[in-house]
Amino acid sequence: MAFRVVRSARFLSSASGGDGAAKLWGGRFTGSVDPLMEKFNASIGFDKRMWREDIEGSKAYAETLERCGLLTKHEVSEIKRGLDLVAEEWKTPSGLALKGSDEDIHTANERRLTEIIGAGIAGKLHTGRSRNDQVATDVRLWLRNQIDELRKDLVQLLQTTVSRARHEAHILMPGYTHLQPAQPIRWSHWLLAHASAWERDLDRLERVRQSVNVMPLGSGAIAGHSFFSPADRQWLAKRLNFDKVSSNSMDATSDRDFIAEFIFWASMTGIHLARWSEDVIIYATKEFGYVGLSDAYSTGSSLMPQKKNPDASELLRGKSGRNIGNLITVMTMLKGLPMTYNKDLQEDKEPLFDCVDTMRGCLPIAAGVMATLTCRPEKMQKSLSGDMLATDLADYLVRRGVPFRETHHVAGRAVRLADEKGVELTKLTFEDLKPLHKAFESDVIKVWDFNNSVESRNAEGSTSLRAVLEQCDKLEARLKRAA
Amino acid sequence: MAFRVVRSARFLSSASGGDGAAKLWGGRFTGSVDPLMEKFNASIGFDKRMWREDIEGSKAYAETLERCGLLTKHEVSEIKRGLDLVAEEWKTPSGLALKGSDEDIHTANERRLTEIIGAGIAGKLHTGRSRNDQVATDVRLWLRNQIDELRKDLVQLLQTTVSRARHEAHILMPGYTHLQPAQPIRWSHWLLAHASAWERDLDRLERVRQSVNVMPLGSGAIAGHSFFSPADRQWLAKRLNFDKVSSNSMDATSDRDFIAEFIFWASMTGIHLARWSEDVIIYATKEFGYVGLSDAYSTGSSLMPQKKNPDASELLRGKSGRNIGNLITVMTMLKGLPMTYNKDLQEDKEPLFDCVDTMRGCLPIAAGVMATLTCRPEKMQKSLSGDMLATDLADYLVRRGVPFRETHHVAGRAVRLADEKGVELTKLTFEDLKPLHKAFESDVIKVWDFNNSVESRNAEGSTSLRAVLEQCDKLEARLKRAA
Amino acid sequence: MAFRVVRSARFLSSASGGDGAAKLWGGRFTGSVDPLMEKFNASIGFDKRMWREDIEGSKAYAETLERCGLLTKHEVSEIKRGLDLVAEEWKTPSGLALKGSDEDIHTANERRLTEIIGAGIAGKLHTGRSRNDQVATDVRLWLRNQIDELRKDLVQLLQTTVSRARHEAHILMPGYTHLQPAQPIRWSHWLLAHASAWERDLDRLERVRQSVNVMPLGSGAIAGHSFFSPADRQWLAKRLNFDKVSSNSMDATSDRDFIAEFIFWASMTGIHLARWSEDVIIYATKEFGYVGLSDAYSTGSSLMPQKKNPDASELLRGKSGRNIGNLITVMTMLKGLPMTYNKDLQEDKEPLFDCVDTMRGCLPIAAGVMATLTCRPEKMQKSLSGDMLATDLADYLVRRGVPFRETHHVAGRAVRLADEKGVELTKLTFEDLKPLHKAFESDVIKVWDFNNSVESRNAEGSTSLRAVLEQCDKLEARLKRAA
Amino acid sequence: MAFRVVRSARFLSSASGGDGAAKLWGGRFTGSVDPLMEKFNASIGFDKRMWREDIEGSKAYAETLERCGLLTKHEVSEIKRGLDLVAEEWKTPSGLALKGSDEDIHTANERRLTEIIGAGIAGKLHTGRSRNDQVATDVRLWLRNQIDELRKDLVQLLQTTVSRARHEAHILMPGYTHLQPAQPIRWSHWLLAHASAWERDLDRLERVRQSVNVMPLGSGAIAGHSFFSPADRQWLAKRLNFDKVSSNSMDATSDRDFIAEFIFWASMTGIHLARWSEDVIIYATKEFGYVGLSDAYSTGSSLMPQKKNPDASELLRGKSGRNIGNLITVMTMLKGLPMTYNKDLQEDKEPLFDCVDTMRGCLPIAAGVMATLTCRPEKMQKSLSGDMLATDLADYLVRRGVPFRETHHVAGRAVRLADEKGVELTKLTFEDLKPLHKAFESDVIKVWDFNNSVESRNAEGSTSLRAVLEQCDKLEARLKRAA
Repeated sequence: MAFRVVRSARFLSSASGGDGAAKLWGGRFTGSVDPLMEKFNASIGFDKRMWREDIEGSKAYAETLERCGLLTKHEVSEIKRGLDLVAEEWKTPSGLALKGSDEDIHTANERRLTEIIGAGIAGKLHTGRSRNDQVATDVRLWLRNQIDELRKDLVQLLQTTVSRARHEAHILMPGYTHLQPAQPIRWSHWLLAHASAWERDLDRLERVRQSVNVMPLGSGAIAGHSFFSPADRQWLAKRLNFDKVSSNSMDATSDRDFIAEFIFWASMTGIHLARWSEDVIIYATKEFGYVGLSDAYSTGSSLMPQKKNPDASELLRGKSGRNIGNLITVMTMLKGLPMTYNKDLQEDKEPLFDCVDTMRGCLPIAAGVMATLTCRPEKMQKSLSGDMLATDLADYLVRRGVPFRETHHVAGRAVRLADEKGVELTKLTFEDLKPLHKAFESDVIKVWDFNNSVESRNAEGSTSLRAVLEQCDKLEARLKRAA
Repeated sequence: MAFRVVRSARFLSSASGGDGAAKLWGGRFTGSVDPLMEKFNASIGFDKRMWREDIEGSKAYAETLERCGLLTKHEVSEIKRGLDLVAEEWKTPSGLALKGSDEDIHTANERRLTEIIGAGIAGKLHTGRSRNDQVATDVRLWLRNQIDELRKDLVQLLQTTVSRARHEAHILMPGYTHLQPAQPIRWSHWLLAHASAWERDLDRLERVRQSVNVMPLGSGAIAGHSFFSPADRQWLAKRLNFDKVSSNSMDATSDRDFIAEFIFWASMTGIHLARWSEDVIIYATKEFGYVGLSDAYSTGSSLMPQKKNPDASELLRGKSGRNIGNLITVMTMLKGLPMTYNKDLQEDKEPLFDCVDTMRGCLPIAAGVMATLTCRPEKMQKSLSGDMLATDLADYLVRRGVPFRETHHVAGRAVRLADEKGVELTKLTFEDLKPLHKAFESDVIKVWDFNNSVESRNAEGSTSLRAVLEQCDKLEARLKRAA
Repeated sequence: MAFRVVRSARFLSSASGGDGAAKLWGGRFTGSVDPLMEKFNASIGFDKRMWREDIEGSKAYAETLERCGLLTKHEVSEIKRGLDLVAEEWKTPSGLALKGSDEDIHTANERRLTEIIGAGIAGKLHTGRSRNDQVATDVRLWLRNQIDELRKDLVQLLQTTVSRARHEAHILMPGYTHLQPAQPIRWSHWLLAHASAWERDLDRLERVRQSVNVMPLGSGAIAGHSFFSPADRQWLAKRLNFDKVSSNSMDATSDRDFIAEFIFWASMTGIHLARWSEDVIIYATKEFGYVGLSDAYSTGSSLMPQKKNPDASELLRGKSGRNIGNLITVMTMLKGLPMTYNKDLQEDKEPLFDCVDTMRGCLPIAAGVMATLTCRPEKMQKSLSGDMLATDLADYLVRRGVPFRETHHVAGRAVRLADEKGVELTKLTFEDLKPLHKAFESDVIKVWDFNNSVESRNAEGSTSLRAVLEQCDKLEARLKRAA
Repeated sequence: MAFRVVRSARFLSSASGGDGAAKLWGGRFTGSVDPLMEKFNASIGFDKRMWREDIEGSKAYAETLERCGLLTKHEVSEIKRGLDLVAEEWKTPSGLALKGSDEDIHTANERRLTEIIGAGIAGKLHTGRSRNDQVATDVRLWLRNQIDELRKDLVQLLQTTVSRARHEAHILMPGYTHLQPAQPIRWSHWLLAHASAWERDLDRLERVRQSVNVMPLGSGAIAGHSFFSPADRQWLAKRLNFDKVSSNSMDATSDRDFIAEFIFWASMTGIHLARWSEDVIIYATKEFGYVGLSDAYSTGSSLMPQKKNPDASELLRGKSGRNIGNLITVMTMLKGLPMTYNKDLQEDKEPLFDCVDTMRGCLPIAAGVMATLTCRPEKMQKSLSGDMLATDLADYLVRRGVPFRETHHVAGRAVRLADEKGVELTKLTFEDLKPLHKAFESDVIKVWDFNNSVESRNAEGSTSLRAVLEQCDKLEARLKRAA
């Protein structure tokens, strides 16, 4: 059998019959360029925000080329002068004037530099450098700067929280499990519970910074660098304040772990903000009434002035989905990619940028909500009900040697007794309790005190005043280390 | 014990000491407004792209209010005149001039309408309508329009594919499982395999349209509409070409199923494009060499002119992550939300818009790649190796009554025999095969023909010419129904 | 340069020196089999639950082979007898006794069949069938059965809900937006809001069933079927109650869309259960107190008898994550897979099975919670506060021709007036209101009635009694169609 | 208006009419227990695998209670004796005999301990401990152990890889970008590229271990511990080899960050295994032919002996979805949860266990594939084509002072010249090249050597022999630190 060879080219030209694939598809172009493809392919629309880091990296790179003898002192000086002028143009309100061929930030900056200082010198800047290692370097520099800002934002939230916790440590409130009142706690203990999660976020952010702060520059397109001596990358890394250099040039150009790690950080921090916001939204309901949101972070209604919608907290809760979605975007993109650079990797930047923007929005808003939240101790106190002290009654017996499981049953019987008598548990007298267990003595009624209850929990991390202030001390010390 | 009541207000004012939470948090504002919050809260930056649907919905709504006797004919006419002028402003290059208080598209349009026709009439437009049902309506109208465009894009891709499949049905190639050559197939069978997946995407898109095309308008903020008669919503729905009205006002204002459904559609379609792109990228390698990408959809290198990077296919593959990420964004946001409207729901639009933009980019690019892909039949034919006919040898015996599992073993022995003789399987003669099984007759050597192999698979959906053309017929009939 | 050829075989044997890769890796095996690999590769541990469908499919397949003349009537009869005996063994408490070589359900059933009826006939059963089309068929048959069960579970939940909604339609409660009280609604309106979401889930489930109910059998390994006539697959599909046959054999063996669609259904339904559970958990708090969970679906404490943890609702909420996770598992697995069958596809079954199990657990539990939930109308009524009628005051003015935006401001002034007087809004008299707007007349005080408020919202889908009962009617009619 | 109070109880009892919700829902139980709920609620089915850690934790806890004076030396001794007997029962093939009331591992162990040593002493073990802090402790202990095993598995994979890389460092192969050949590299450079990713996974795993190794025990149900002195938790932590104690009791019982962190580790490691597997699958195709999979990790076919399906690599690739899915399961579950313990948190264990099992399966399989992979240097060498040296030609000119961008164009012209002459680039002589640029000298033809090309890339992390062996040295040093 003879195969009928139908080359696409012929196939296309024969499409004049009216039913060919080319016509169906639209025949957008006659020449070799599909205008849609240019837009599809270009990254300048989003990667231009790294202009500063691209220029910073190029200056340091030029200096290293001088070290290798590939550029003269004069050439480096010209390149730096030119790059400074490019930077000036970026700083104007409208930014650098882009041309159609500027498909990414690297081409744009090099094109403009060439216009300013001429191709003779500008054409040497990229010696041994490829866009593969250049973009990886730019993203790391840019993200490192953003992480430093985010760390400040997170520290501010933590400082605001611990400051409140210290000042308001005397306020008691019901502690919940399953959203059912369980045991009395300090309001500050609740604040510090959330701060503990954010402190882990701070630890994680500092670890992410280490993962980010590795220099891929000098890896070339894939196989490494032909002109650097073994030591040059270390010198360049120090020049750009990187902690270390990447270990393998193929990996270096296709590694996006640091982006996934950062987005995971954002996801976890976002989840913590969402959990805290859920608490705030519930505590701010008319029915709970424990906290009031500042007007600055809620919207009212001229029609229903008593209605104050906790918009800020709802957005903080809702935006948690965004980070997690971005994590999936990046992970799905990475899954199954062959080594080394593939164009798919260009899809890493928009989710990264969105996470950075989201968190730089969320953290200051969270700090603002935290600082301005009204606390209503009288409402909280009113919600402390006697049966929340049943555990304390059991603990009383434990202290007198009764096995824990038995004390549990005795306390249960006391609660039922109060119920039968139609009184609060705390109204039971020594005489009421005596028949329930021989270990009860007259001092048992001291159990009926929410403050005593809270104070009795004095182990590290517990809700007694001492333990809460100890938490404040430790957290403040931690924050000092971060600042 | 006396609780020390520390109200946030006092707490803030007492913060002058230097360590208060307010100072730590930055004290961005002295009055009641945090400028960051305005930005955090506003949706106008992204929801303004629905300006057209917002206006369209308002016009129809005004007509319904006239039907209810709440607006006069003149008032409706004024409102429509005003809205048309607002639309004109949106159509200018810079769009409607926004003001600081325009937090979303609804407020912006109403504000401008009021400026144009005065508050006396404009102030009546929102009678019985809330932003909760209005935004849900706008999104549905907007998405319905986008779906109609996407359907065209998808049909174009399918038409391009089926047209190629019909024209190039005589080309044979190796069919792969586990990326290992398995059996000879028609090139068109491979094309139609991907088309089958896209056909399901078309079915799903049409079903999503039905889910989208339900009208929430007339649900008010939560409890329903106070002025509409029972029949008015049906009238309004017909006016706006909705298939039906939502059944419950609380659900209607907080239902985002249709958005998740649409993003799921985009996710599945994206996965199909990614699988096809993976095939194209592998077939376009130097080593496989079955297809060549048009210059329009790849990038070359002046340095390495033989290198043609399949950028379009890589981006199609990489962008699959984006849709799935957006699905997670929306689902995570929805998870655990109490009834009914919560501000979290505002986070639905950006992922939706991103998915629409992504797919409106991807589908035409995919059609372009499909139309311009060069097919290399000679390379494919060269890759058809004799051992791919081992199954056909077994089938020969099956036709002569030998149990399938036994034929399998006999064919395996034939492959090993060829290996021992150092020849291709297809070089084995009747004499070679005779000793392996008594059922072999002299016509067995007709098995050694790739075309016969392909033609023998003639059941519905198989790779014979008849079966492949039948697939083309059915798909074309399906596309006619869609057009 | 001479390449130093280090074949893995030599490499391994030379590893005796002590530092070779083989030793490091553990040298688990001396022969050709790694015992860990057998376990890694086998699917029998989970796919055996499809034994019934595997046998059902084989019987129908044998009949089709008879139709093609490849099996005699006697052979088919023997195969069916044998398969029935295999089925009997599966039905025993310990199930079919598996052997080490039974790597999946297909091999296990065929192996056992061969032992029972002999290889002469059993060896013919797989003629033209591969595991690729067989497993795809089994999963579809199995899932179709499960969907039919899930549909019943979902209908039961809906019936329970609509029955409550009809019986309890007179109970009023506060309706919430942003978890802040907004307007009075019927308790049944809230029930039906959730039912509306579940009704969409029912629609979606029926659509998923259509996607599932397509027969891949007859597609062979990849290229189609060599023995079936064009019509045989249609006959076989009818025999197995499939709606239609798959259109392309390559696609048929690697298509997992129907699994993703099902898991998406489970994800959306899970999200709806989570949103309802969130409402239930909040309404069941001591602070809201609107509902009480039955002891059957909550856990108490002998110590704190008043504490009733809403375990069932919390698990329903928490399990929503599971379905979404499974969706990601399947989508990530599919992303970037080349055509056609790849072993990766084996990873489809565990997430599918987990989703089916999760939903078959969740739906009956949800129905149980729904049926036994205690409703506390007195608590609800107590929470209806006067300011929730501010909208109604505005509506009163609208009915008298005042522009909506103006009525809004007047109502706001009334609320503030009540606040200044220190009374509930509903205590304002006609005399109080008169100065606020000239359109107020003496009948304005009829506005101060929650029932009137609810009844005034009478459009389709609103909260008036008529509208609510209409919702019940429509939903019941829908359920009748499903049953 | 009088609300018609319809209590669920009455509602249920009135359901006898035939249409009540209870009947519709099935009326599974007459008493207070729904048998489905017990199954839905219980975790013993999966959490029993932590029996060892539960017992270990209890022993240490008993010692701490002795320290506090709440248990005598004898009581502790009895408890430890009893727990050892419980452990013996777990170690039997059938494990501890469970009873219906054993809803989780903690109840099961306590119940059995009570049976063995009596309630008098056993009833004291849980003094001050709740299931909330106990389960969090058990999971951390269990996961810490698993991490130690996983670390060994990962180190083994890395050692296998680096050992191959060192032994096979002389083999050259084409390096790919966009799956198109780009530059010659060492095969070992490719191996080390993947090892670099796995090294990061090792770093991350060690960091996760630190996050896991924090002790929640002593946090009680929510508010802390009533009997421990401030120092007791530190003592207990040391006893159980925890690095530190949790800082806040509310956070401690509801923090699941460490689980998400671990699953993120598994997700990233899984993605790296998937990327490596993608490379292996492509390199193992007939068309590339660079590697051959051992029979131990692939499946053949008696019919098509030449076909070797890379099952192990496909499963490694496919299973990447599973970890990411589990990450979403846990994150979605956590999103929006109020403080502190909620039953939703029980859903953390199955995804965690699945990830541990998946990775403990994947890592040894990956090491096995790595150790037994056949490398085919002759195939690789054959694929090194002359145009891959175009960059080297440009580099030659750079070394002679020609600006990089210009050298790029000259090299491109050389490639076209070779094309016009119909020869490989490497066949161009000095005479051919001379006209293209004045900087060419007779030594230019030394560029036409793949080994020279590879050796010229000698910066840190590049592909020269020195640089590759340096990578091996560093990696081995790193692994020594891990062991």
